[in-house]
Amino acid sequence: MLEKVDLKKRVSKEDYKKQVKPLQTALTALDAPIKTAGLPVIILFEGWSAAGKGDAISHLILNFDPRWFSVVNIQPPTELERREPAMWRYWLTLPKAGQLSIMDRSWYQEVGVLRLEDEVDDLTNLRHMDEINSFERGLTDNGYLIIKFFLHISQKEQKARLEKLDDSKNTEWRVTSKDWRRCRQYDKYCDVFDQMLEYTNTPNAPWHIVSGMNEEARTLDIFRIVKESVESALKLQTEKAALPPSESHTIPPSQEHLVSMPKLSEINLNKNLDKGKYKKQLQKEQERLANLHNKVYLKKIPVIIAYEGWDAAGKGGNIKRVSEALDPRGYEVVPIAAPTKEEKSRHYLWRFWKALPKSGHVAIFDRTWYGRVLVERIEGFCSAEDWQRAYREINEFERQLYDWGAVIVKFWLQISPEEQLRRFKEREETPAKQWKITDDDWRNRDKWPQYEIAVNDMFQHTSTDFAPWHIIEGNDKKYARVKTLKLINEAIEKRLAEGKKHHR
Amino acid sequence: MLEKVDLKKRVSKEDYKKQVKPLQTALTALDAPIKTAGLPVIILFEGWSAAGKGDAISHLILNFDPRWFSVVNIQPPTELERREPAMWRYWLTLPKAGQLSIMDRSWYQEVGVLRLEDEVDDLTNLRHMDEINSFERGLTDNGYLIIKFFLHISQKEQKARLEKLDDSKNTEWRVTSKDWRRCRQYDKYCDVFDQMLEYTNTPNAPWHIVSGMNEEARTLDIFRIVKESVESALKLQTEKAALPPSESHTIPPSQEHLVSMPKLSEINLNKNLDKGKYKKQLQKEQERLANLHNKVYLKKIPVIIAYEGWDAAGKGGNIKRVSEALDPRGYEVVPIAAPTKEEKSRHYLWRFWKALPKSGHVAIFDRTWYGRVLVERIEGFCSAEDWQRAYREINEFERQLYDWGAVIVKFWLQISPEEQLRRFKEREETPAKQWKITDDDWRNRDKWPQYEIAVNDMFQHTSTDFAPWHIIEGNDKKYARVKTLKLINEAIEKRLAEGKKHHR
Repeated sequence: MLEKVDLKKRVSKEDYKKQVKPLQTALTALDAPIKTAGLPVIILFEGWSAAGKGDAISHLILNFDPRWFSVVNIQPPTELERREPAMWRYWLTLPKAGQLSIMDRSWYQEVGVLRLEDEVDDLTNLRHMDEINSFERGLTDNGYLIIKFFLHISQKEQKARLEKLDDSKNTEWRVTSKDWRRCRQYDKYCDVFDQMLEYTNTPNAPWHIVSGMNEEARTLDIFRIVKESVESALKLQTEKAALPPSESHTIPPSQEHLVSMPKLSEINLNKNLDKGKYKKQLQKEQERLANLHNKVYLKKIPVIIAYEGWDAAGKGGNIKRVSEALDPRGYEVVPIAAPTKEEKSRHYLWRFWKALPKSGHVAIFDRTWYGRVLVERIEGFCSAEDWQRAYREINEFERQLYDWGAVIVKFWLQISPEEQLRRFKEREETPAKQWKITDDDWRNRDKWPQYEIAVNDMFQHTSTDFAPWHIIEGNDKKYARVKTLKLINEAIEKRLAEGKKHHR
Repeated sequence: MLEKVDLKKRVSKEDYKKQVKPLQTALTALDAPIKTAGLPVIILFEGWSAAGKGDAISHLILNFDPRWFSVVNIQPPTELERREPAMWRYWLTLPKAGQLSIMDRSWYQEVGVLRLEDEVDDLTNLRHMDEINSFERGLTDNGYLIIKFFLHISQKEQKARLEKLDDSKNTEWRVTSKDWRRCRQYDKYCDVFDQMLEYTNTPNAPWHIVSGMNEEARTLDIFRIVKESVESALKLQTEKAALPPSESHTIPPSQEHLVSMPKLSEINLNKNLDKGKYKKQLQKEQERLANLHNKVYLKKIPVIIAYEGWDAAGKGGNIKRVSEALDPRGYEVVPIAAPTKEEKSRHYLWRFWKALPKSGHVAIFDRTWYGRVLVERIEGFCSAEDWQRAYREINEFERQLYDWGAVIVKFWLQISPEEQLRRFKEREETPAKQWKITDDDWRNRDKWPQYEIAVNDMFQHTSTDFAPWHIIEGNDKKYARVKTLKLINEAIEKRLAEGKKHHR
């Protein structure tokens, strides 16, 4: 794509002055509608060293209120960041609804300069680019606007600029040996950039390749593109809001890697364990897990354990039996409640990305990202389109965790409605347990049939060979505890047997 | 203090079994009242290598619901963490109301092992310990419970344990050359620990030195101390809640480093600049700042600019003129609104610590931590004791920033009530500005006299030679913009002239 850019384009100072004023006024006027519409905007700048990214950003932000944007400067990942999935640190930079995030370099680091400099193989690179496309689609599908700029200059121009910077005492520190190497190997980088631009030039987040040869032309191009992109995003949002809500299944979830699951009604809830057997087996499985935790820590394998289930199904007690077996310095329990205002104003997966473990650590989620297709579906907290699309989004999310090297174990704790009623009543009657039962629990209970449909749909669309669901027969808590421990141990042992994967 | 510990104390297995059960039951029963009372609890473990910290933590947490506590493992600071004030990373670990944070090592790292290993000089060490005492007092004053354990063992015992760990293939990775060096230099570390324990053994956060020689005795001691500490904190909270609210000034703010300030009523608001002079001076000061920003970046000096002032005093436009002069990769504007639920459930300074710049960066706060003594005082969002104590807490906070090497500039943008009314009306009449004016603004305007008292009190108690207040005459926006820029430039130049300070 780079060869198509007109590097000769020039605008005279006079023409510039005439054209820039109305663009500036238009951009400044966008601040209020962006805020009112709650539109989150990401404007990212990639391009050659010395192509003028910093300068372009300085010009652009003059048009905006400094309280509603932030400039994010991306450096190569630190050692700690390398212990997380590649996209992790980018998730953390997401702007809130109504805010602008202006990025000086971005998630294209990994598939751009770092691809050459870290000697990333083709397959890993392709996977990274797929993850980026999925990331950007996930954002735009959920209401984000992404404007991507690549600033292009010729090798000759780059060399001249680096020399000029290097010649002044005030600016020489800006030029590193890396910049010089990149300039010498211009053609090699050109190929990498071209492939990256082609592969990630999607309809929902297209690239804008702008010539950086002439400052005036560059500024006008960028201002115009930002203005038009924001205006059309705002228009689209208004049009979409005017449409009647759709209730039908419009988005076919992906069929790849799915494994078949029984329906909840087919589960035999009579399974149980007597106290003697329970004590013995519990101890055995806990010791096995303690042992495996050590190995997982040494091999730096991340483990993600996800709990869903009916209210009072015994998640808390079950989690306790798992955590008892773990070294407290190597795990974290993440209780998930209704999202806070802060969380609501971002992509629904943001808070889960934030809570991911480091490699070698265990994260236990007490309720999970599946809230999107359970409570949010049933209570109408998101549109039908939103939760239907979520099956694919969640599968892609878990796939990224798997590709990162994680063990993923998902549990549905199943009890009968009768057993739930018995436990609710017991909680109400035991003073020390009363805080555990709320009106919400009774309301949710009334919606049992709707939830059962949603749970079965969830199994059908999100049980994959890399992150399968396990239904745990929970009427007998002892049986359930031993079974989850066993399944966790088996999943970790399987993963250890597979050995090193395409870790970062 | 260490020599007073009885290292011979032993409990037989039988006695242990008898005594531990009721303690476990009592601890488990504390989960609910901690949650109900919203008590945030920090339990920290320091002590010798191989003294059994990990093991003690594993035992302790078995008593609690894994969803209400987290285990925080403190490592030596990373390079990025060293670019923040020493206490920064500890502020980020604070538990929420109703949660337990169990710390494996803590803020005593810096004044314990790292004091010897980083060769910290005595004066810096004393300052660190003062910061720790101030940090802990700030927490306990604001409702936190801190339980501090130091696990003590003899040199002989330590050596034996390290050898045992080293002999097994499964555990040898736990023993590093550092552990061996620490063991060899036991006496040296003993002196450092002793000084640390003495100096930071405060009534509000006393040390509990526990012998780690016998596992049973250690466990019983720890369980008993946690139980008693939590129970008495809960009792104290209940008693305090039963007291009638006090309105009188009970806490004398510190008099040190204070500089005298005029009253708001003494400010001459007729100062102004004509357009021609404004344009010239603005450009001059912006260029000066752009230049200084480069130097600040290279010398890694953090700059903190704090804006307070009446509604419609012109903060936004003023901040824009400052940020225009800065390199977008080196500053951040932090708009402060009402605290979120997440923020409310922690110490009120938590969100400001979180937003501190890296060294070499500039943070511009649009409203600040002074909300505690302005809006929170006037609206009764905190008790009289709380906001009166806040003067000292804020001075201590800013002192830590200053000691870290920061430039701190604080502005109060002053306008007359008549000018405010004019601007409010203009906003109401201009469609593009209507979103800027809310009912809250009118309500605050009605409270002008109360605010004026609070602002004058704030000046009197928090204008220090290391972080002085500047009152900006704001009826003429042009005059105000040039004046703030000038003051920022002067403060940075003064700081640059002082050269390297006791940076970390």
